[in-house]
Amino acid sequence: MSFSPLIRQLIDAFRVLPGVGQKTAQRMALQLLERDRSGGQRLADALSQAMEGVGYCRQCRSLSEEELCHLCSDLRRDETVLCIVQGPVDVYAVEQTGYRGRYFVLKGHLSPLDGLGPETIGIPELIGRINNGSFKEVILATNPTVEGDATAHYIAQILADKNLSITRLAHGMPLGGELEMVDGGTLSHAFSGRRPIQL
Amino acid sequence: MSFSPLIRQLIDAFRVLPGVGQKTAQRMALQLLERDRSGGQRLADALSQAMEGVGYCRQCRSLSEEELCHLCSDLRRDETVLCIVQGPVDVYAVEQTGYRGRYFVLKGHLSPLDGLGPETIGIPELIGRINNGSFKEVILATNPTVEGDATAHYIAQILADKNLSITRLAHGMPLGGELEMVDGGTLSHAFSGRRPIQL
Repeated sequence: MSFSPLIRQLIDAFRVLPGVGQKTAQRMALQLLERDRSGGQRLADALSQAMEGVGYCRQCRSLSEEELCHLCSDLRRDETVLCIVQGPVDVYAVEQTGYRGRYFVLKGHLSPLDGLGPETIGIPELIGRINNGSFKEVILATNPTVEGDATAHYIAQILADKNLSITRLAHGMPLGGELEMVDGGTLSHAFSGRRPIQL
Repeated sequence: MSFSPLIRQLIDAFRVLPGVGQKTAQRMALQLLERDRSGGQRLADALSQAMEGVGYCRQCRSLSEEELCHLCSDLRRDETVLCIVQGPVDVYAVEQTGYRGRYFVLKGHLSPLDGLGPETIGIPELIGRINNGSFKEVILATNPTVEGDATAHYIAQILADKNLSITRLAHGMPLGGELEMVDGGTLSHAFSGRRPIQL
């Protein structure tokens, strides 16, 4: 297998994409070269513009090409609720639920062993944001993993004296799931959080 | 779900890649933006350079950034065998077998209903190549599909009067395959092409 230098360089470059190995990268490169050069050029331009032009919103710290992202600059959103998530992707996920409050995006989760302390993930900025805001509720929407739970607990402790209602997303059965497929931890959360049926 | 314009443009652009739908495109865009901007920029540059710089070899018509690709300009290769394939990808596949003859790359297969006639896929250039060469054998390595077989037959008829040995790749059981999984057509080819065991 000996590709020419430019093709080899393109195949290697494709491997930065998540889930793309050697074979897939090869297929992508050759398909673009053989079938869709203009699409390839469009992708090159879009990548270049996005890598340079997209920064972070100074308020919620999500990805944005404006100084203030379109969610933060939307005055119709609820100023009394703040949803804290681990990354920009999570903002788009939470938006799908119909949530229309404010966001704060951490840079990941606490992980002291990897050198990710409160300063690294943005806790000081979070406290500043809450002090400057008029929030009544803070929703801790970090991932339901060991690290996400630890991060949520840490934030809850810090905010304990601020007269805020601090909540965490519910655990339970995912819709469309099957009891036998769900892990024991989730199932016991679903049991202890059971609710009366509304008739 | 409302991404900012540059991010939306990047997600749309990723969808030109084979096998990449909305969700995957989103994951690729956000992962690059959050984790690997320099990798994204490298990919943009590699794409741009390859889309502009890679052309076709004037002899075998495979992808190449030189006028003559590195396979055609390699003087040590066998000048007496020509392998005809349907596309540049197939050259890389055949190279893996250890084949060290010459190549000719068609632009796909004959498909009169789609307007792909002998001129479109490059039959005149193929005849010119054979007339100017000193080939003793022509290997028809088009795909073992209805269209690939038809294309191979068409070429074999055209070359019938040229005093060449014209061969087609063998059909049979793929290595590691299981009899019960192989289709009837392949299995009957494998039967009729059975060979004495070498002890």
